[in-house]
Amino acid sequence: MQKKVYLAGPDVFLSNGKEILGRKAEMARAAGFVPLCPGDLAPPPVETKNARGLAISGINEGMMRQADAVIANMTPFRGLAADVGTSFELGFMCALGKAVYAYTNIPDDHFKRCAAYYKGDLTRSADGRMRGPDGLSLEDFDMADNLMLDGGIKSRGGAFVVGNAPADQIYTDLTAFAECLRIFSERHGH
Amino acid sequence: MQKKVYLAGPDVFLSNGKEILGRKAEMARAAGFVPLCPGDLAPPPVETKNARGLAISGINEGMMRQADAVIANMTPFRGLAADVGTSFELGFMCALGKAVYAYTNIPDDHFKRCAAYYKGDLTRSADGRMRGPDGLSLEDFDMADNLMLDGGIKSRGGAFVVGNAPADQIYTDLTAFAECLRIFSERHGH
Repeated sequence: MQKKVYLAGPDVFLSNGKEILGRKAEMARAAGFVPLCPGDLAPPPVETKNARGLAISGINEGMMRQADAVIANMTPFRGLAADVGTSFELGFMCALGKAVYAYTNIPDDHFKRCAAYYKGDLTRSADGRMRGPDGLSLEDFDMADNLMLDGGIKSRGGAFVVGNAPADQIYTDLTAFAECLRIFSERHGH
Repeated sequence: MQKKVYLAGPDVFLSNGKEILGRKAEMARAAGFVPLCPGDLAPPPVETKNARGLAISGINEGMMRQADAVIANMTPFRGLAADVGTSFELGFMCALGKAVYAYTNIPDDHFKRCAAYYKGDLTRSADGRMRGPDGLSLEDFDMADNLMLDGGIKSRGGAFVVGNAPADQIYTDLTAFAECLRIFSERHGH
């Protein structure tokens, strides 16, 4: 039985999202898996925008339940952290006990990205934590993103692949995605 | 048996995080619940920063499994969207079938915050979606955040309370949190 893999990520928001997700699906098939992509199933006609969003959420949750694994694109999205929808999905798949893989196309880790967000204006508070001028502390755990994301993956024996895409290709470079597929295939493929 | 509620959110990063979480815990107790807070349990001594992050992740996952419900603080964090760790936790709790409640202290919905991020520089593409100058489409579903977050809560009969805190109190105002407690108490309390 071929394993099903849910391709989570903000790829759906790209102007060439269908093309990118199509390429990812093709790569997953070539590696021997059945890809499940957000956007593959159209929601039924509904009366309000809110109902449409709710229907898409239900479809995506259904695909995740069907899937054996997730490969999540955690590349920072409109800011310094991963997409929150993808983060939700990663947590969802962790709780369901699925195989969890993720990648980012930005090599700077969470601490470095937060420090850049504060333009380096950091101070160490009495409790030993580094904080920005707004008082918010920075996680410093040698992790690509928030500890729940990295920890959820690592504690389940998954992999969080850190890529280094050219600046104009952070949402389209599939090198790190391919590496996730390779690792998943080595462990769970035929 | 008193219900246990996991208090998810970026509150732990505040300079007065312990005080705020203490107040939230006290309010939860006053409403008849047992609060479980990230940071309540100290991880064992470990050798690396990474191992420490992993240990905290494990502790938080354990607390979530113990809990009957989550009240997640989804107030935008270091940018336009919710904290990714909290988003992961919301997804985790949705998958486990727990009761899910959330709040934000920013009244502007997801679309409005994204539009502000692009300073209103939006165009409608051929597929009918509004996009920023970077080509990324904006979700427009009358939702407080990404559809997976709002959808996960709504489809489970939870509540996503939208507050309107003063600008200097978006991380400390507990009005919307209190409303989550009130709704949860009405439905599941004694």
